[in-house]
Amino acid sequence: MTDRFLRACRRQAVDRTPVWLMRQAGRYLPEYRALRQRVDFLTLCKTPELAVEASLQPLRRFPLDAAIIFSDILLPLEALGCRMTFNPGPRLAEPIRTREQVAALDRRAAAETVPFVGEAVGLLRRELDGRTPVIGFCGAPFTLAAYLVQGEGKEGFGALKTLQYREPATLEALLETLTAAMIDYLRLQISSGAQAVQIFDSWAGLLDSPGYQRFALRWVRTIVDGIADLEVPVIYFINGGPHLIEDAATSGADVLGICWRTPLDVAAARVGPGMSLQGNLDPHALFAAPDEVRRLTRDVLARAAGLPGHIMNLGHGILPDTPIPSVEALIDTVQHTTGKAAQPATETCRR
Amino acid sequence: MTDRFLRACRRQAVDRTPVWLMRQAGRYLPEYRALRQRVDFLTLCKTPELAVEASLQPLRRFPLDAAIIFSDILLPLEALGCRMTFNPGPRLAEPIRTREQVAALDRRAAAETVPFVGEAVGLLRRELDGRTPVIGFCGAPFTLAAYLVQGEGKEGFGALKTLQYREPATLEALLETLTAAMIDYLRLQISSGAQAVQIFDSWAGLLDSPGYQRFALRWVRTIVDGIADLEVPVIYFINGGPHLIEDAATSGADVLGICWRTPLDVAAARVGPGMSLQGNLDPHALFAAPDEVRRLTRDVLARAAGLPGHIMNLGHGILPDTPIPSVEALIDTVQHTTGKAAQPATETCRR
Repeated sequence: MTDRFLRACRRQAVDRTPVWLMRQAGRYLPEYRALRQRVDFLTLCKTPELAVEASLQPLRRFPLDAAIIFSDILLPLEALGCRMTFNPGPRLAEPIRTREQVAALDRRAAAETVPFVGEAVGLLRRELDGRTPVIGFCGAPFTLAAYLVQGEGKEGFGALKTLQYREPATLEALLETLTAAMIDYLRLQISSGAQAVQIFDSWAGLLDSPGYQRFALRWVRTIVDGIADLEVPVIYFINGGPHLIEDAATSGADVLGICWRTPLDVAAARVGPGMSLQGNLDPHALFAAPDEVRRLTRDVLARAAGLPGHIMNLGHGILPDTPIPSVEALIDTVQHTTGKAAQPATETCRR
Repeated sequence: MTDRFLRACRRQAVDRTPVWLMRQAGRYLPEYRALRQRVDFLTLCKTPELAVEASLQPLRRFPLDAAIIFSDILLPLEALGCRMTFNPGPRLAEPIRTREQVAALDRRAAAETVPFVGEAVGLLRRELDGRTPVIGFCGAPFTLAAYLVQGEGKEGFGALKTLQYREPATLEALLETLTAAMIDYLRLQISSGAQAVQIFDSWAGLLDSPGYQRFALRWVRTIVDGIADLEVPVIYFINGGPHLIEDAATSGADVLGICWRTPLDVAAARVGPGMSLQGNLDPHALFAAPDEVRRLTRDVLARAAGLPGHIMNLGHGILPDTPIPSVEALIDTVQHTTGKAAQPATETCRR
């Protein structure tokens, strides 16, 4: 069944739970590290043939149910006129903290500023030829703003949070610009061949519920609305937002990605029946012995057994040092667990 | 009423909500920065007269309802034999990641290894002479282990989480040693004059519920039990743990400190009537204009109006650049809000 991923997104019946892994094309793969020996990160992202090669690497090794285009959520920010370096984390040459800086952002169309992303998606779609669906993606506006305002990924994102309270209107102006850019960016990916898209909100958990509604959720909803006519499933992932699940369930997305902090049965009770869930094995669990990985994977599947739709994944991106045998144990366990076999353990529904 | 803080810890009636601020002795105060011009951080912590001076500085400026001894949660780790520097964050000369390293930790009594903490608490108690109660504190074992294993404060604490899954028994051995040391350390502070103690679990939110129960909660409970005969109120604070509130409510502590992510009325419904709550204004909210600080403070007080006990505080430590007028606005608002005046706004109980 080549469409079990798309069917699970839409809460349709599947033969077994589909599985893919956030950052599945990446540093834990020796063949990816070999590719990176030859080219730097930005060249890899910006050369369609190389981005497609990176996207295909994990599919050659594991029987994954979806491919995600190799890129970075910050690439379209460079297209907005923000200069940055990756080493490996991103660093902005000049953080954006004033109205004037927001007004000066470049608003040209994604097809003009990041054409290589559309080309890479189209090429990946042709290469896979219907065997495996292609996922496009972007960063959620608040998470993109986090990097733009802070200037780097930094525990607590103090400059961002200070701006939130000191000059909320400036932050909102930035979010509005980013939202328009991301709608355009996702439309480019979908028109190029992406069959589903994921919106990554890695830092929304820095907000309390009122802040989340104002500075994150509202803009995600606008993006979901802005691509609704293209009729591809939308996955919305928040890292570290166990306090935001009820709010996030109103985003309009088809699938909510849950980080490892909340068991899927608990999350499902808070989300309600209208969404599929994606996740949520702790990425660090892959450092356990393979038998323990199998046990923990079965536990996630058992907790998800009653959901209208479930896409197995990690609760955050796979880590660079992850042992390959653990990834094999995870994927093999999913492949050999049918809906029927996924019986909750007795301790499953503890809340 | 000089004992309103202790009364609120014990869920007894008070004339108004007591208030103190985590890290109230610290860098946001010009007089603290002046003190630090003269001595380095560790000298300040280890010289009782200077630690007392730092502890008293915020009380001279603001009518706070409790004093907390100036120190750092990592000081007793140095006493265990771990060499570290502060610049300003802690860095261990050698992270602890093996059984052998755990076994080699120095287990001498706190009265021998950190006598200056006991002396400082005693001196602070005498200086305050019953006008303001004295809080002692320690780090929770998991949070201390986070620094010991990682070697520094680092987003995600990858080395810690890897050890958790790869060698859980080594982590447990470390937690057992730290637990015994913290019981001894808190007993020293209490016998020296501390009238309440707070256990800081800044990194427990890195764990899911089963992990939290095994690697964090169990050891906090052992500490609470280990000082129960001394009959001082215990405050247990978790940062970033909105998914752990039900578990944390079983720690045995008298007061649960809630970070800013969960509104106090929502937290109270999950904790039940047996505990007081402490918190929980977002520390970044103090970067808003004073009128907005007043509004947000009133909102916290309103949400807490029905609790059996509430101690006003921030949802995490006060930040170094916090404007003093905002602190004044916060404290003044608490002082001039009696239980009667704290009427919930219409939007208060949204869940």
